[in-house]
Amino acid sequence: MQKFAEIVGVANVLTDAADMAPYLTDWTGAWTGDAAAVVRPGSTDEVAALVLAAREAELPITVQSGNTSVAGGSVPGAGKPGLVLSMSRLNRIREIDSAARTATVDAGVVIEALQTATAEHGLDFPLMFGARGTAQIGGALATNAGGANVLRHGNARDLCLGIEAVLPSGEVVNGLSGLRKDNTGYDLRHLLMGSEGTLGIITGAVLKLVPTPKIRAAAFVALSEMDAALDVLNALQDATGGLVEAFEWLPRETVEAIRAHDPALRAPLEDAAETGILVELASTRPDDAATDESGEARLQSLMLATIEPLMERGLIVDGFFATSEQQRLDLWRLREAVLETIVAHGPFVALDVSLPLSAVPEVLRQAQPLAEESGLKPLLVGHLGDGNIHYAVVAAPGQTWDPETVRSFSDRLTDLVTAYGGSYSAEHGIGRAKAATLAKRKDPAQLATMRAIKAALDPESLLGRGILFSEV
Amino acid sequence: MQKFAEIVGVANVLTDAADMAPYLTDWTGAWTGDAAAVVRPGSTDEVAALVLAAREAELPITVQSGNTSVAGGSVPGAGKPGLVLSMSRLNRIREIDSAARTATVDAGVVIEALQTATAEHGLDFPLMFGARGTAQIGGALATNAGGANVLRHGNARDLCLGIEAVLPSGEVVNGLSGLRKDNTGYDLRHLLMGSEGTLGIITGAVLKLVPTPKIRAAAFVALSEMDAALDVLNALQDATGGLVEAFEWLPRETVEAIRAHDPALRAPLEDAAETGILVELASTRPDDAATDESGEARLQSLMLATIEPLMERGLIVDGFFATSEQQRLDLWRLREAVLETIVAHGPFVALDVSLPLSAVPEVLRQAQPLAEESGLKPLLVGHLGDGNIHYAVVAAPGQTWDPETVRSFSDRLTDLVTAYGGSYSAEHGIGRAKAATLAKRKDPAQLATMRAIKAALDPESLLGRGILFSEV
Repeated sequence: MQKFAEIVGVANVLTDAADMAPYLTDWTGAWTGDAAAVVRPGSTDEVAALVLAAREAELPITVQSGNTSVAGGSVPGAGKPGLVLSMSRLNRIREIDSAARTATVDAGVVIEALQTATAEHGLDFPLMFGARGTAQIGGALATNAGGANVLRHGNARDLCLGIEAVLPSGEVVNGLSGLRKDNTGYDLRHLLMGSEGTLGIITGAVLKLVPTPKIRAAAFVALSEMDAALDVLNALQDATGGLVEAFEWLPRETVEAIRAHDPALRAPLEDAAETGILVELASTRPDDAATDESGEARLQSLMLATIEPLMERGLIVDGFFATSEQQRLDLWRLREAVLETIVAHGPFVALDVSLPLSAVPEVLRQAQPLAEESGLKPLLVGHLGDGNIHYAVVAAPGQTWDPETVRSFSDRLTDLVTAYGGSYSAEHGIGRAKAATLAKRKDPAQLATMRAIKAALDPESLLGRGILFSEV
Repeated sequence: MQKFAEIVGVANVLTDAADMAPYLTDWTGAWTGDAAAVVRPGSTDEVAALVLAAREAELPITVQSGNTSVAGGSVPGAGKPGLVLSMSRLNRIREIDSAARTATVDAGVVIEALQTATAEHGLDFPLMFGARGTAQIGGALATNAGGANVLRHGNARDLCLGIEAVLPSGEVVNGLSGLRKDNTGYDLRHLLMGSEGTLGIITGAVLKLVPTPKIRAAAFVALSEMDAALDVLNALQDATGGLVEAFEWLPRETVEAIRAHDPALRAPLEDAAETGILVELASTRPDDAATDESGEARLQSLMLATIEPLMERGLIVDGFFATSEQQRLDLWRLREAVLETIVAHGPFVALDVSLPLSAVPEVLRQAQPLAEESGLKPLLVGHLGDGNIHYAVVAAPGQTWDPETVRSFSDRLTDLVTAYGGSYSAEHGIGRAKAATLAKRKDPAQLATMRAIKAALDPESLLGRGILFSEV
């Protein structure tokens, strides 16, 4: 440990069990690991020096950002206890370039902290998910995180113009020029993103920023049926020139469960919608923010004018339009209460699946009886515009939670999803939770390619033991 | 050759020198290569069988799409003559899904053919560059091609949701589900894109489509100075909610050269602009296409209303607004005449550089005397919104073209660009033309990583000999 203390200072090498504990259990409590030490570097150079020292000492490294992984990817897997490398001290916003609309940051910057800082420049970093107050940029990039705004702004990888990283060799690759275009060889940036800390340690990034909208308009609409969703989304996109920021699915059962959990939250529609959608538009156009002849902001009128003919066509059967900022925020409170509602039901499993957009309705139809047969109640929510459904199940009323039955249900649901060309990890990544699933289900040629890349770039398997690749 | 003929049919194995000739010289005439045979597979299975047979016969493979590479990447490099694998027969549009707004295509589909087919669905594949009438999807993806619309819709890689490819092992990886989100392991799609056919042979792809705009508005504006460009672009983006489709830089010297070459083309402004910008907006919004109180389409009025205050602020000093479709097309004729104007000047070299947006003016200022000292006249054009400048030079009037001087100038310009964090290949790739530059200039850690990946995935160096990696 002497060597590590020389690099980061003795205060930043934790070896006492109590000191290490917060770093060795993830936020769900389900994933724990062992470590010889938790080290907290304060610079890229220190990360590079730690990597060399860890190789020398033959200690595997697990990179930990905000420890908010929903796949157990932030705590070390089984095997020889090594180092947990906490990125939290690498939390400097290096530069915000208002003209180029980019931010250059340390990997340990918390997403919300960046959003607060860019807001002062009239800019936003549009990666929006529940854990943004804790999750860090580096973790979001390493797992290619998603969220509610992917529809418009893309996943984490789409928001990243450049990466600085320390390779398993201890070398630092500096890709922080922030170029919009660079076709000089293999794209190591995109390889590191989504590699979950198994090929390199992301220490810095250049991120795209977008102008803060001048106006937002939100509505909660009831679709006639799931199959109407794509028509409605496309109509909204065309009518608004691509201003749809969110298209979040909240089915009747989920809204009812939220209201049972927290009666203070209001259902937006009097008759709970079988297929409810929270739609949000956002625009930077001054003319969209201006009040029009109807007395509403133009963007509101545009939303209404787009939805009216969809109601006439029978695709939408009911709608609530937020006419104040408070009403808009209330819709989002409903959306953001989903997770706590599920957690309050007791044991649950949440599958993060994605599907080709056109296959979503059919897969949901076939999944319902699978859940019922297993004595499970689905509590679903979805980033429907991306074909991404968070398929959570809790014990159905009067049923007990049987882990074996749940595992079997999960397998059958995953079978169903993959049969329709879907993914068993849309935005949460693999981590430790799905490493065995990946080993079993990934196309063998692709898995072999992944293993070949891992062996080529990290021959000693220094990084991310137990993460992504199955330990068995 | 017997084995290959069994796979693709005897008519699709060319060994006669005259038959092979069109495949062994690129469109510029500058790059030539040798081959034992040109083979033309008609299906993914045939590609896979050819790869196995070529391995068996120890014949390297060069993949050739539309043979429009501007970096010599479409014809084989030095070494043992092998196979040129022409993708032209793999030209089936497999499916256009209007609801999901995706197209699934063979890699050999010509870009313009796809655009024609999607137009019938009211959709566009927004990859827009000069060679689109010949260039194929597979080549565009393998080189991560760019063009005039990258600003809004991204490079080729941003338009691709999935890839089918044959690996050097002969295995087929099928990633054609068209998922918007899939975080199951390393992103092989992004690794294959930009690998220029050196890691796998792209045989099919799922591509994003966008709705065809209802209205376009174009203008040619004269900036007060280069430094005003980002302010103008940002103002346009904010005022239009991100509708800027093109922001193309045409400096005075280039416009004058175009007009000298083809006097039928009109200069849009009476006083040729020192720093001219072709701006195009495009919108799918019906309200943008509707005529407003001024009698113009609303999008036209929006452009005017945005530019007026920029003129008052002195950022824009003159402007021409296309008020008819003919005027708009004339502006694009001017833009698209750049290449033929340069070619008409005799020998030229065109560097494809990109820069951090804020560094563009300074680098251009410093480059000018370098060109003058070398007896060269720059004829520039740029996708300025992406920081991408095509820096072409021809002999200055009264000067002779000296290849050695030009090489030295190219080196100095590349030094300058890299000193400012820029790239020596923004969108054209490396091919054979820049393989030595890559070997010399790429950060050693990144180059070593690229070589390790190449060795891991293509240990026999079957694919793309002489391309990307320097032969020396």
